[in-house]
Amino acid sequence: MFFSSDNWAGAHPLIAESLVKEASGYAAAYGTSDLDKRIEARFNEIFQREVAVYFVGTGTAANSLALASIAKPGGVTFCHSEAHVTADECGAPEFLTGACRLFTVEGPNGKLEPEGLKAAIGRFPPGAVHQGRPMAVTLTQATESGTVYSLAEIEAIGAVARDANLPLHMDGARFANAIVALQTTAADMTWKRGVDILSFGGTKNGCWCAEAIIFMKPEMATEMPFIRKRSAQLFSKTRFISAQLEAYLEGGLWLDLARHANDMADRLRSGIRAAGKSRLAWDTQSNEVFAVLTKDAAAEAQEKGAKFYEWPVPRETPDLLDENETLIRLVTSFATTPDEVDRFVAVL
Amino acid sequence: MFFSSDNWAGAHPLIAESLVKEASGYAAAYGTSDLDKRIEARFNEIFQREVAVYFVGTGTAANSLALASIAKPGGVTFCHSEAHVTADECGAPEFLTGACRLFTVEGPNGKLEPEGLKAAIGRFPPGAVHQGRPMAVTLTQATESGTVYSLAEIEAIGAVARDANLPLHMDGARFANAIVALQTTAADMTWKRGVDILSFGGTKNGCWCAEAIIFMKPEMATEMPFIRKRSAQLFSKTRFISAQLEAYLEGGLWLDLARHANDMADRLRSGIRAAGKSRLAWDTQSNEVFAVLTKDAAAEAQEKGAKFYEWPVPRETPDLLDENETLIRLVTSFATTPDEVDRFVAVL
Amino acid sequence: MFFSSDNWAGAHPLIAESLVKEASGYAAAYGTSDLDKRIEARFNEIFQREVAVYFVGTGTAANSLALASIAKPGGVTFCHSEAHVTADECGAPEFLTGACRLFTVEGPNGKLEPEGLKAAIGRFPPGAVHQGRPMAVTLTQATESGTVYSLAEIEAIGAVARDANLPLHMDGARFANAIVALQTTAADMTWKRGVDILSFGGTKNGCWCAEAIIFMKPEMATEMPFIRKRSAQLFSKTRFISAQLEAYLEGGLWLDLARHANDMADRLRSGIRAAGKSRLAWDTQSNEVFAVLTKDAAAEAQEKGAKFYEWPVPRETPDLLDENETLIRLVTSFATTPDEVDRFVAVL
Amino acid sequence: MFFSSDNWAGAHPLIAESLVKEASGYAAAYGTSDLDKRIEARFNEIFQREVAVYFVGTGTAANSLALASIAKPGGVTFCHSEAHVTADECGAPEFLTGACRLFTVEGPNGKLEPEGLKAAIGRFPPGAVHQGRPMAVTLTQATESGTVYSLAEIEAIGAVARDANLPLHMDGARFANAIVALQTTAADMTWKRGVDILSFGGTKNGCWCAEAIIFMKPEMATEMPFIRKRSAQLFSKTRFISAQLEAYLEGGLWLDLARHANDMADRLRSGIRAAGKSRLAWDTQSNEVFAVLTKDAAAEAQEKGAKFYEWPVPRETPDLLDENETLIRLVTSFATTPDEVDRFVAVL
Repeated sequence: MFFSSDNWAGAHPLIAESLVKEASGYAAAYGTSDLDKRIEARFNEIFQREVAVYFVGTGTAANSLALASIAKPGGVTFCHSEAHVTADECGAPEFLTGACRLFTVEGPNGKLEPEGLKAAIGRFPPGAVHQGRPMAVTLTQATESGTVYSLAEIEAIGAVARDANLPLHMDGARFANAIVALQTTAADMTWKRGVDILSFGGTKNGCWCAEAIIFMKPEMATEMPFIRKRSAQLFSKTRFISAQLEAYLEGGLWLDLARHANDMADRLRSGIRAAGKSRLAWDTQSNEVFAVLTKDAAAEAQEKGAKFYEWPVPRETPDLLDENETLIRLVTSFATTPDEVDRFVAVL
Repeated sequence: MFFSSDNWAGAHPLIAESLVKEASGYAAAYGTSDLDKRIEARFNEIFQREVAVYFVGTGTAANSLALASIAKPGGVTFCHSEAHVTADECGAPEFLTGACRLFTVEGPNGKLEPEGLKAAIGRFPPGAVHQGRPMAVTLTQATESGTVYSLAEIEAIGAVARDANLPLHMDGARFANAIVALQTTAADMTWKRGVDILSFGGTKNGCWCAEAIIFMKPEMATEMPFIRKRSAQLFSKTRFISAQLEAYLEGGLWLDLARHANDMADRLRSGIRAAGKSRLAWDTQSNEVFAVLTKDAAAEAQEKGAKFYEWPVPRETPDLLDENETLIRLVTSFATTPDEVDRFVAVL
Repeated sequence: MFFSSDNWAGAHPLIAESLVKEASGYAAAYGTSDLDKRIEARFNEIFQREVAVYFVGTGTAANSLALASIAKPGGVTFCHSEAHVTADECGAPEFLTGACRLFTVEGPNGKLEPEGLKAAIGRFPPGAVHQGRPMAVTLTQATESGTVYSLAEIEAIGAVARDANLPLHMDGARFANAIVALQTTAADMTWKRGVDILSFGGTKNGCWCAEAIIFMKPEMATEMPFIRKRSAQLFSKTRFISAQLEAYLEGGLWLDLARHANDMADRLRSGIRAAGKSRLAWDTQSNEVFAVLTKDAAAEAQEKGAKFYEWPVPRETPDLLDENETLIRLVTSFATTPDEVDRFVAVL
Repeated sequence: MFFSSDNWAGAHPLIAESLVKEASGYAAAYGTSDLDKRIEARFNEIFQREVAVYFVGTGTAANSLALASIAKPGGVTFCHSEAHVTADECGAPEFLTGACRLFTVEGPNGKLEPEGLKAAIGRFPPGAVHQGRPMAVTLTQATESGTVYSLAEIEAIGAVARDANLPLHMDGARFANAIVALQTTAADMTWKRGVDILSFGGTKNGCWCAEAIIFMKPEMATEMPFIRKRSAQLFSKTRFISAQLEAYLEGGLWLDLARHANDMADRLRSGIRAAGKSRLAWDTQSNEVFAVLTKDAAAEAQEKGAKFYEWPVPRETPDLLDENETLIRLVTSFATTPDEVDRFVAVL
């Protein structure tokens, strides 16, 4: 009953096997091998256009270096107040962009709203040095709250960014879960809606360690080779990332794994609703479920072996909990089994 | 005939298999799993004392964050002019230390010499803000020139550092090769000679991606958790590093692999000497061999499938080459076969 | 009728004359002259204890380097959402601290409140690397909203900081105005209430360019010489700052000038209240006045030669204005004359 | 007998008086006043073309922000090994450029030579990320060794920079002294010889605190407003710099003051040569003189009230001194009197 995080799972067997397969034989280092090039090209197909691809080692690195590629002195990036970049990366985006800032904007369900974003950008009068200047917008898909922006919502955020001449970055640590939830495609969910740069995450969805920064317009990536190297994110045996992605992307495995995780979350949502002893804190569409339990029930579940984290109450719903209740986050993954879910529901 | 670099090899089968073995099952993320803790503890045995261990993804990260842990405003680290930190890391040590500087010192055979180091440190009068202030000494073992510091040489550098109250860092990207060359132990080659912090490299010696920063005095590492996270080097599934190191350290595999690489370099050195058509540029003791060939011979070898890099002539031996000669670097690894070596020597 | 900002005034004649007086003769450079030392010592008297004093060139530098002196990897400083450090310094505090972050906290009247501050700090669980870690609290006295923290309010903020083991910084760009408003002393308003580091501003109150960072505990300043120099804030002819401060501090001139500015603001407040055509947006106690006018009245005043800035409506009072109204900021200074004030009130 | 440094002098009376004159009256802050604009325009005349001018507070700031304006990830600036940027600025250029590096090149008399510079640039193969990439060349005029590049020498360095597509920066902390020494003009010594950006220094030559970054091509300065502000170098009462420069530039005062300083250095050189008890260490052309004395003579001079610094022996002339000798630096300024010089020579 492991629902702490999707990164508590290991790696999918096909991905681990791919590492074994590629282990023998020589190949050019630092991302220049045939395999590296082949996987980079594979992304062109997935995104239905020529993209520039930069492998890095962590999601935090993907987000931080994506922002570094569009950094400016005095630059400010707008993000949701619960976004991973501002809430969970220990200042890495600031550090690796050379001290660019994040300006947080609140919005319900972990999502930026066009009006709120616009107002935030409006606080920076053009040409004024004192405030600094807008440099980017970043949104998370699926969000940290387990919700998913609809295509129209992404498009609306994209329009605000474009009107302000700001590039739009998407933190796609759970990119596959969002695609599956929306029954859409990578292209439809990104550049066709205004996304310029994507952090494409594989680690949370069955890889050991495979993240990529995808530039929808390759000409935006000219500084990336140096940005990546000086940030210590250029791996000598880049093959170890490519080999994972080879299996991950082969035959749509990545979407299958996400679909499974989402299905398990559905099962969890249904089970919680049906059991009636706890309630869903809000509606989610991806592989994260937020539930309200009595503190006693939470403690009992943990005693019986369930793993999960208690979660801070979102600022926009301060009255979510009764005094004797707690909010918990439950995350499913490619490795979650129906049996695990059912046992957990039974425990509740 | 792949002698371009030891990072052109893949991973040793036992290491790749270990990743498969650990792929299933859940474990706590971000370096807190039982396996992570077990491997960290394994280093206590290897170094014969309690050490603090921080896994990171690249050798550049290991060096840069090691220096970041002892960084000071206006700080200057002394290194050899051919050291990887200054010559091959695109400024990552400067960037990730918050702009601390590297002060290069020349010395024969890629090694710092006590007198030269002392003179360099002496250029920074205590208390003077204009020059900045010494913050560390770093040496590379084995060096970028394929040579190996003797234990006495390390001790002498350590003494200069200690007299100046500076911590001593060792870049051990080829740590195992040096231990084998000196027939010594990890403890004898590090803290017993004055080394405070070590970049322990596994990637060049048969891992996919496994580097660790080892603090000989754990109390020096108090800032590291935050330094590592804000530098985007904290891996969620840290297990993928631990699993590699589990196999790497098991039964002395790491030393066996290095011994093999060194042996192959010996075979290469002997072959080159015996063939008499080219010559060794200087004496080396690790898995790197530097040879002087006629440009024609080099071109012919490449045509026949030999892979290697031409190398810049070291500043201290400007007259190394005749006009029609070139300097090449040959690197062996755990994957190099005697047959590869013999074929290469035959081609020469 | 110049009410745009207190930095639109020039320098007080006594301060300019002091620069003439010190212009001849030689003196040791870089802050080591007798005059520099004498002025530093003068601050010991003013603060009734031994303090460490570092002159810098701008208020932004004073704030940024004060925070740099207590910076940590992953560090977060708590400030009011309208604080100068976050709203008006173009990211300098982040840049000059090596990318430490500012976490904004809202509160009425431009002031931090103990409960809000405590809740904000509470979002950072001790020992967790993901969120980063608290490193400081900073408050502004007088605030950007023209209000002044009472001594009890400072003490309450100081208590929250101390409970969380965080140093407390005060941005004193308008330090003298606050002292005069509270009829207190420098010591009573700072270290006796828990302030550890002060940005002591002279520029807005009649100097050309004179700011100082005051460490209430000199042992906290050990890194400052290097921090200041590597940030390009060590002036060779530091005398030009000391000479200004010599006149500024002599005979209480600094308090006289602030008293005059505050008095002029009082006159403005009274005049606005009496005229009845506009209203005070909120109550202020220092040399800043915020008034609500009809847009027509504001335009007319500007046509008639009044200089002031229109100001964004604070987030906590979104309903401050009617549709045809605007918010303006009026700042008085040592140079403001009663006649200027009266003419402005007449124009309204 | 003050020869420690030109920054031990105060300010020229006309410059101090100008501060008094401008002290009264209001003016727009942050460099937007009429006076600021007028002085900026004055530089167009001096440089015989439209230039972009940014005032800053220290020479270190001027150099650092000039380099920041052309910084790139992984960027490397080439400078002489004795240059102020690398030897005397505590890493500010690295810090304020976001960790760009300085690559030092040796050359006789404190000057870069075209061949040495070319070889240094050649160490960075185009497109290779590991080494980083060239981003600028910087030279100092007059040099830290008291020498002056001839116009042809500047042109030759400019040609190497241009061939490598690198902007050329000139550190002109003693710009006026060099112009006077060469009997040339500001235009002839800068952009007509390939200089793109200049640190124009006023402080060492009679100002209190007045430095400017001059962009010969204004389009290179688009990022500067934000770079300057986030580095805490935008002064609110910028007038205090403009007022100094108003007097400094008026009627050629700046060149008169430099001529006087150079003449005093000539008198010193002649006196030392004539006295025959000490010798000039090498030939200089600006307001710095380097002399070799017996240690006894140096001690005696200091006892008799002479102020100067002992100086490290340049790396390229290791045999400069006998065992009982020392090298001293003597700097003259606008404030040096013939009598001071004569008394010093008499003391020798």
